[in-house]
Amino acid sequence: MPLARELARYALGEKLTGIPAVAQHEAVRALLNWTGCAVGGSRHAAVERAIAALLPFSAGPHCSLLGRRERVDALHAALVNGMSAHVLDFDDTHLRTLLHPSVPVASTLLALAERQPMSGPAFLLAFLIGVEIECRIANAVWFAHNSHWYITGTAGVFGAAVACAKALGLTEQQTVHALGIASAQTAGTREMAGTMTKSFIHGRAAQNGLLAALLAQQGFTAAESSFEGPHGFVNVLAPQRDLAAITAGLGTTYEILQNSYKPFACGVVAHPVIDACIQLRNAHRLRAADMERVALVVNPRALELTGIQSPPTGLKSKWSIYHSAAVAVVDGAAGEQQYTDARVNDPVVRALRERVTAIPDAKLSEIEARVSITLRDGTIVSKHVERVIGSVENPMSDRDLEEKVRGLAHGILSPQRSAAMISTCWAVADLEDIATLARAATPD
Amino acid sequence: MPLARELARYALGEKLTGIPAVAQHEAVRALLNWTGCAVGGSRHAAVERAIAALLPFSAGPHCSLLGRRERVDALHAALVNGMSAHVLDFDDTHLRTLLHPSVPVASTLLALAERQPMSGPAFLLAFLIGVEIECRIANAVWFAHNSHWYITGTAGVFGAAVACAKALGLTEQQTVHALGIASAQTAGTREMAGTMTKSFIHGRAAQNGLLAALLAQQGFTAAESSFEGPHGFVNVLAPQRDLAAITAGLGTTYEILQNSYKPFACGVVAHPVIDACIQLRNAHRLRAADMERVALVVNPRALELTGIQSPPTGLKSKWSIYHSAAVAVVDGAAGEQQYTDARVNDPVVRALRERVTAIPDAKLSEIEARVSITLRDGTIVSKHVERVIGSVENPMSDRDLEEKVRGLAHGILSPQRSAAMISTCWAVADLEDIATLARAATPD
Repeated sequence: MPLARELARYALGEKLTGIPAVAQHEAVRALLNWTGCAVGGSRHAAVERAIAALLPFSAGPHCSLLGRRERVDALHAALVNGMSAHVLDFDDTHLRTLLHPSVPVASTLLALAERQPMSGPAFLLAFLIGVEIECRIANAVWFAHNSHWYITGTAGVFGAAVACAKALGLTEQQTVHALGIASAQTAGTREMAGTMTKSFIHGRAAQNGLLAALLAQQGFTAAESSFEGPHGFVNVLAPQRDLAAITAGLGTTYEILQNSYKPFACGVVAHPVIDACIQLRNAHRLRAADMERVALVVNPRALELTGIQSPPTGLKSKWSIYHSAAVAVVDGAAGEQQYTDARVNDPVVRALRERVTAIPDAKLSEIEARVSITLRDGTIVSKHVERVIGSVENPMSDRDLEEKVRGLAHGILSPQRSAAMISTCWAVADLEDIATLARAATPD
Repeated sequence: MPLARELARYALGEKLTGIPAVAQHEAVRALLNWTGCAVGGSRHAAVERAIAALLPFSAGPHCSLLGRRERVDALHAALVNGMSAHVLDFDDTHLRTLLHPSVPVASTLLALAERQPMSGPAFLLAFLIGVEIECRIANAVWFAHNSHWYITGTAGVFGAAVACAKALGLTEQQTVHALGIASAQTAGTREMAGTMTKSFIHGRAAQNGLLAALLAQQGFTAAESSFEGPHGFVNVLAPQRDLAAITAGLGTTYEILQNSYKPFACGVVAHPVIDACIQLRNAHRLRAADMERVALVVNPRALELTGIQSPPTGLKSKWSIYHSAAVAVVDGAAGEQQYTDARVNDPVVRALRERVTAIPDAKLSEIEARVSITLRDGTIVSKHVERVIGSVENPMSDRDLEEKVRGLAHGILSPQRSAAMISTCWAVADLEDIATLARAATPD
């Protein structure tokens, strides 16, 4: 059986009652985190400029843009909410593959839900299915694939397509075609790191998935062999792959349990360093003026992905482990305020950033880092983080997540509105209409 | 200088007066052929289903859909006109790379022209620039690239983006960003051959290019190194490449002179066989009942791309050199009527198709084929086509092209309307407003 058909059959057969409560709760946590990120990113210049370009092409004020007053059609809502949920690089991460699971799936489902009624449980089920399938496809291809592609732009579009297929009630054949149409839109090269186009790639995965499902609903056809065919997704975009990972344990194990939420607003591979720096700063009451140099030892992928030494902009600084270490030591934080153009050009941050060195060590895992800070008086303080905060092994608590989301909504939503949004997220399984959440996440 | 900047500088500096008259005339021929294909494809089920899915998402009746009465916004017009211009596989071909140059560039420019006034000469200039740049990028990457990707989906989007950048009057920096945003949308795997999604990939290249230019116009940013960067378009999508081909002779030689127009409605690599079969049929007054078997000797790429032996559908039969040979001998033609589901299932065609054999011979060029037909009485008749009709070396005349376009418009436009559309195409250099052409190509 073609893989696309096997996945379609799973998606259409899956029921919420068959999914463990712990996985369902993780989906609610992911939804809360996504909602906060979308609201928090909604005033970013990338989002402002995209809206300026796209508003003349919106069919009508059908759907909410989280954190904003404009309303647009569902295809544009999927794109723009996806962009704002990702633009701060603060969204969730499937750590094994570096896929950001919620952006493609939640952005497109919530947009669809404002076009046709969708209950909270129906949303949760479609969301879980979309996340499951995109993560499994990511598991199959991430090896060599990730050095070239943004995997959320390539694998994420399948999650969006299949979630919409489930929510729209497509037939198995239509769902197979939706996956094929999605595969014709897998795109997004990593050269776009640190530019607005990175968030566009992520939002576009959401929009492309919805478009695929809408076309398939009308009988639009695609190849059934879209995954494993000789010129299909896997052979073209993944020189190394593990096809069996796509279906092994399907319906039994749930990838949402491997999801993680960022405490810091930058590339996840830099987080162990930030965690160590903040702990050192707080434990030793370090001040910028006291420090001579900072030495990092990290997993090689951290340097590969966040190796920019002198970031020219705030967006680029999210991909600089040097900048992340500097702000973590100077500010004791690595929130959105640490990745602005102003912070990048701050003389104190810049001076310390130039005295950060980093070396790769393949013996360290990706959730691990060693940091040594040499003070001007010759003292050396060191920290070995073995399981970074925010990892699956050391997760943010529900309260941590709430605090993060409250911070993201600050200045955009009123405190009352923010509280209502958070409680609406937690209550998603009881909502008669998930569109309630979209309205709760927009300003009064 | 980054390649994107070099291309942007060329595009913004180029003037119509600097382009040889022969290249300008070839652009007009390409426009005529594109217009005919878009009208001819406008009633295909792929187009009908796409419109059914997309009409609810159109911002308004701003732009024409060629051959149809519905009107949609510019982004949707670029997509749908691009799809209908390609869906019959009858559009133009840059033979060296197998890029279809006009679909991305003309579809997006004509849509844009109904949004803001654009003179015929301004259209021609932007069209020539878009075609030039997409063909040069295709020249750089087609080697190994084409075995995996539809090059119109990958290289074509750059042509659409830069043509729109020129037409919109973007700055050099905005044009660089438009090329970068375009590079984040290069997509389309070859697994979609013979499905509706193949035409979607081609139309999407047009739409994606327009979207890139509209975003860039608002200051949306992308990487300048989108082509040659370590994770950029070339390194990710082209394992073998010839980067120098992108700029060698830029502004001096014109790729539009390497463009060709199909006399037959199928994959261009099958055309030499069709040409030979029709010539044999006519010369020897062959009838289906007389023939025992048909033996083809072809360039290897013809078998690689059109090697389907028993096509299940009309769309798939465009990729069957066996079906093409059978209908060419039986019908003496290979127009759209030869690639329908009905013709695929016709007992006479099917019986002969099963008696067609093909072998590759690397000594034959791609515009060459040998065909031998053995008759039931033992007679063998043979033909060696050295330069297929429709190739650059043996082009369709202006009158041939007119006849092809008239045939495509038959039954969709009135004869008067069809004649007006054709004369409007020929007069493009004198048009005050190119939108005149869009209106001429829709039914009364």
